[in-house]
Amino acid sequence: MEKRKILNENLTHDDLKDLDFEGLTMLSSEIRDFLIAGVSKTGGHLASNLGVVELTVMLHRCFDFKKNDRIIFDVGHQSYVHKILTGRMNGFENLRKTGGMSGFPRREESETDLFDTGHSGTSLSLADGIATAKMHTGEEGCTVALIGDGAFTGGLCYEALNNIGNTKKNILIILNDNGMSISENVGAVSNLLTKVRASKGYNRAKSGVKDALGLLKGIGPALEKGIRHIKNGLKGAIVPSVFAESLGITYLGPVDGHNVKQLEYYISSAKNIEGPVLLHVKTVKGKGYAHAEGEPSKFHGVSDFEVDKGITHSIKSDFSGAFGMELCLLAMKNERIVAVCPAMTKGCGLSGFAESFPDRFYDCGIAEEHAVTFAAGLAKGGLVPVVATYSTFMQRAYDEIWHDVVMNNLHVVFCLDRAGLPGADGKTHQGIYDLSYLGNIPNLPVLSPSSFAELSKMLRFAVEEYDGPIAIRYPKGSDRECGFSSFTFGKAELCKEGTDITVVSEGLMLKDVLDAALEAEKEGVRAEVIKLSTVTPVDLEEIKKSVSGTGCLLTVEANVIRGGMGEAIFSALRAKGGIKAFPNAFIEHGKTGDILSAYGLDKEGIKEAIIKEAGAKNEA
Amino acid sequence: MEKRKILNENLTHDDLKDLDFEGLTMLSSEIRDFLIAGVSKTGGHLASNLGVVELTVMLHRCFDFKKNDRIIFDVGHQSYVHKILTGRMNGFENLRKTGGMSGFPRREESETDLFDTGHSGTSLSLADGIATAKMHTGEEGCTVALIGDGAFTGGLCYEALNNIGNTKKNILIILNDNGMSISENVGAVSNLLTKVRASKGYNRAKSGVKDALGLLKGIGPALEKGIRHIKNGLKGAIVPSVFAESLGITYLGPVDGHNVKQLEYYISSAKNIEGPVLLHVKTVKGKGYAHAEGEPSKFHGVSDFEVDKGITHSIKSDFSGAFGMELCLLAMKNERIVAVCPAMTKGCGLSGFAESFPDRFYDCGIAEEHAVTFAAGLAKGGLVPVVATYSTFMQRAYDEIWHDVVMNNLHVVFCLDRAGLPGADGKTHQGIYDLSYLGNIPNLPVLSPSSFAELSKMLRFAVEEYDGPIAIRYPKGSDRECGFSSFTFGKAELCKEGTDITVVSEGLMLKDVLDAALEAEKEGVRAEVIKLSTVTPVDLEEIKKSVSGTGCLLTVEANVIRGGMGEAIFSALRAKGGIKAFPNAFIEHGKTGDILSAYGLDKEGIKEAIIKEAGAKNEA
Repeated sequence: MEKRKILNENLTHDDLKDLDFEGLTMLSSEIRDFLIAGVSKTGGHLASNLGVVELTVMLHRCFDFKKNDRIIFDVGHQSYVHKILTGRMNGFENLRKTGGMSGFPRREESETDLFDTGHSGTSLSLADGIATAKMHTGEEGCTVALIGDGAFTGGLCYEALNNIGNTKKNILIILNDNGMSISENVGAVSNLLTKVRASKGYNRAKSGVKDALGLLKGIGPALEKGIRHIKNGLKGAIVPSVFAESLGITYLGPVDGHNVKQLEYYISSAKNIEGPVLLHVKTVKGKGYAHAEGEPSKFHGVSDFEVDKGITHSIKSDFSGAFGMELCLLAMKNERIVAVCPAMTKGCGLSGFAESFPDRFYDCGIAEEHAVTFAAGLAKGGLVPVVATYSTFMQRAYDEIWHDVVMNNLHVVFCLDRAGLPGADGKTHQGIYDLSYLGNIPNLPVLSPSSFAELSKMLRFAVEEYDGPIAIRYPKGSDRECGFSSFTFGKAELCKEGTDITVVSEGLMLKDVLDAALEAEKEGVRAEVIKLSTVTPVDLEEIKKSVSGTGCLLTVEANVIRGGMGEAIFSALRAKGGIKAFPNAFIEHGKTGDILSAYGLDKEGIKEAIIKEAGAKNEA
Repeated sequence: MEKRKILNENLTHDDLKDLDFEGLTMLSSEIRDFLIAGVSKTGGHLASNLGVVELTVMLHRCFDFKKNDRIIFDVGHQSYVHKILTGRMNGFENLRKTGGMSGFPRREESETDLFDTGHSGTSLSLADGIATAKMHTGEEGCTVALIGDGAFTGGLCYEALNNIGNTKKNILIILNDNGMSISENVGAVSNLLTKVRASKGYNRAKSGVKDALGLLKGIGPALEKGIRHIKNGLKGAIVPSVFAESLGITYLGPVDGHNVKQLEYYISSAKNIEGPVLLHVKTVKGKGYAHAEGEPSKFHGVSDFEVDKGITHSIKSDFSGAFGMELCLLAMKNERIVAVCPAMTKGCGLSGFAESFPDRFYDCGIAEEHAVTFAAGLAKGGLVPVVATYSTFMQRAYDEIWHDVVMNNLHVVFCLDRAGLPGADGKTHQGIYDLSYLGNIPNLPVLSPSSFAELSKMLRFAVEEYDGPIAIRYPKGSDRECGFSSFTFGKAELCKEGTDITVVSEGLMLKDVLDAALEAEKEGVRAEVIKLSTVTPVDLEEIKKSVSGTGCLLTVEANVIRGGMGEAIFSALRAKGGIKAFPNAFIEHGKTGDILSAYGLDKEGIKEAIIKEAGAKNEA
């Protein structure tokens, strides 16, 4: 790699203003090299950041986010360039590592990171709040929200647009249209954006900046032939603009997001328009790195790789894969099974299902609420829907699970991937709240497998045998998978006999609990270990029986204490002993093992707890 | 009232088909009389049902919901006419009473009530599910969703439209545009609908059914002059149609929702169009009853009234009023205070605030998610937002509270009205889950006042003294308000001394707990009573101190057991005793007193628990 000419860790807004278009293009190229080199070593989000290099550079040139302008990155995994331009180049050495820089915006890293984020579709509402506060306080400056076309499928965006439209709020919405969210985009909005990219208007805009605002003027004539014609192809050329304009938001674009000259013109134009503006920017995910451009989904979130070769790791077996495989097997035998997934097809191990059963697979965009309520309708209509997404994203649909599915006692199977600690993505992605938020919904059993085989059995049970709402939570990865695979719904299972203390555990924690119990045995403490595959409702009888023998109880779970498994058991049993769980806190990113260890939830910590509680049981 | 000529409890789809337009109009008139007479005795939702009489009659005429057609009423408070037409006339005698007919759709009442509902904006997603299942199973028939313009401000609708658009699903969306939701509508979508009603196109459509589909054809020419002209007034005439069409949904209307002939024509036309159709129907809320037409908000949900005079009850003081009053007092002194309310202005006691501080009041439509995330932005921008809605509706924003406000440690005050048992609205509206779903969010204190004065103090503390996210939950009504008004954040307070048992309670339950303790005293059991104003985090020290003296503990709360106050206390203390709370269940409608009594949470039940637990403490 040749020596950097422009990129350095102290670049400011003023430095960017001093560059000419050639310099800005060169800077963008240097940033790309830096990102590819860095992320290939640490892992992280690559394709999305390569797509917004010029865009972020030009936003930092046109706005001063250290003064009165504000920027919010929707979700935030595309904020790497912003981090580079706000003094955080050094942070990339330890990106997403324990104690290192986060892969998402974080307030403690920079005053320009306004919010800690990681969930989708929040930026427009946040921008609305910031811009509204500015009107009250009299502070000047523009509020910029950078949001992908994928996030635009979420209802929160629409709620925000509806409140932003027809106001004088100084908000610039940058619609980063890369033709895909994490999985392929779906739905009507996506179709429109796709059409616009193929339209004459867009290509004309590409040919020079002179026509930039002319494109907007040109929309009128295109409408002449009315709705009938709109239906026959012209539609795509105009509708996104009318969609925005119909909500009272000025539309500009589309513009080539990799052309610094065009970007300068459009962003400057947007600054001069009163009230909210939506600037439609077309970018290429993975831009400038052939491997990522070719397979952007694969390069969305990556672990380390070789720059020359791309990603060559073989795929490890994991819970997601075990889930997807079993669902395919079940679906072959039962035509009523359909899968619903809010834009997490690959992450949830459903690519195979989507390929094998395309007409029974529903990716409904980043729209967890719709996914769940849609599933309620599917179930009422006689199908058996399986709704899969990450544990933390399912939080979005708490009310829909409660109101539409469970209250109506419908047979919907919820599969919560990434329960427990996914690790590197950090506090916005930890799946350590689901035992609590699902636990307080009446009549919703929650299962937690400790092995692939157990997950398969649970899924089969949930789909084929059970008739009603039911949830399964399982973790990322497989490294701590234990050998137990038996599953009987509602029944706790004795895994190891003992006399001094009863230890109840769920999911992946079981492996460390068993190892810890063996270690404790060497120190003379004989723990009885119970596997709680059905976390809700708790099989109190089996636990009570064991505790009546051992005299004390330790519960171990990958969840926060409040509302979790241990609380439910102890409030019912009033046994002596303790709860090992995460504190009621947000848990930062890092290696899963490091985090477990920090909270005493690794083998060592559990062993100590076993010995301590067993020793304390005879105290007053 | 003259004798009914057509309306009877056994009307069928075929009966309606046999009527001519005159007969249908007369039937509608008879239904109106029946509704006014009935609801004036029982209370219930009046204005919204009077608005959809002709519409519901014509839907039952054009579709057969007992065969293959399906209908979903969004929210469901406008389903009374549907209940009349599906054999439930007799149910109106005991509408919303304990053991009586629900005011919302309920599966156990009729096979035509597909879902138990009560929350807003779910109908389009449910319809999408039903229609999609029909495509799989091959079952014929249309799926109709009847949704108000208020619900259309919610993001879930948009997510559904995005998934329905550009498909061949046989879905008819009836947009019931009455120019208001429960409070006045807000936002861009509402403005558009308002303009359409004033437009030439709409008035032309009113003049005769011949132009009905011509209106759609007429849209083309109106667009000729392009975006610039759209901005100058023509906009209103076309945009709702283009909004729908831009999402791939055929738009029909607007049509006069009180003209049976027009309705017949439009609904029949919609039936003949392939794929999803949005039929825009204009109705008058409270239609046909002068008092309700004049003040439709007042007649949204009513208790009993005199038909001739309208609502003449004086307004009782309640927690909502106490909240609104205190917020006004605080706002007068502190300009940074703003109120955010998702379409519940009147119900939350904020009408006075909205009038006094119009530029500091944000009704963001039925969009709880946006309300919360918007508030995060406001707080970051330097304001102090107070977000108020009902406990059950705040469930919608669980993830936004967690991700946008609390994780970012922003000073937002959440006020949850209708916590505990609102009663007559039933299981979709009970506020008995908030201690659980808020409790598991880290670093979010939850306060529960037992009196108006305590609520005022809590609000003052939350706004003026505290700096971070904080929630206050308080009930409907005031009849059980007790005299205690002191409040110190984080501290439990001894209300009554005793020696035999410690009773910890929160909110309105405290009154009955104190009364029960006095009754128990007569039977020789001396209970010590502790008021837990700060439910999260729990002041364990004070409770521990008391229990160390009394030897046992009873907790009493207006919440379900799982994840609630008692579970948190008992899992931490392991005291002897018990939890009085609602079971993990959905609680049906009825008089609050009846429900409390049924679950042993009235004075008598609590007294019995006190005596029982105190007596059991010396058992093994």
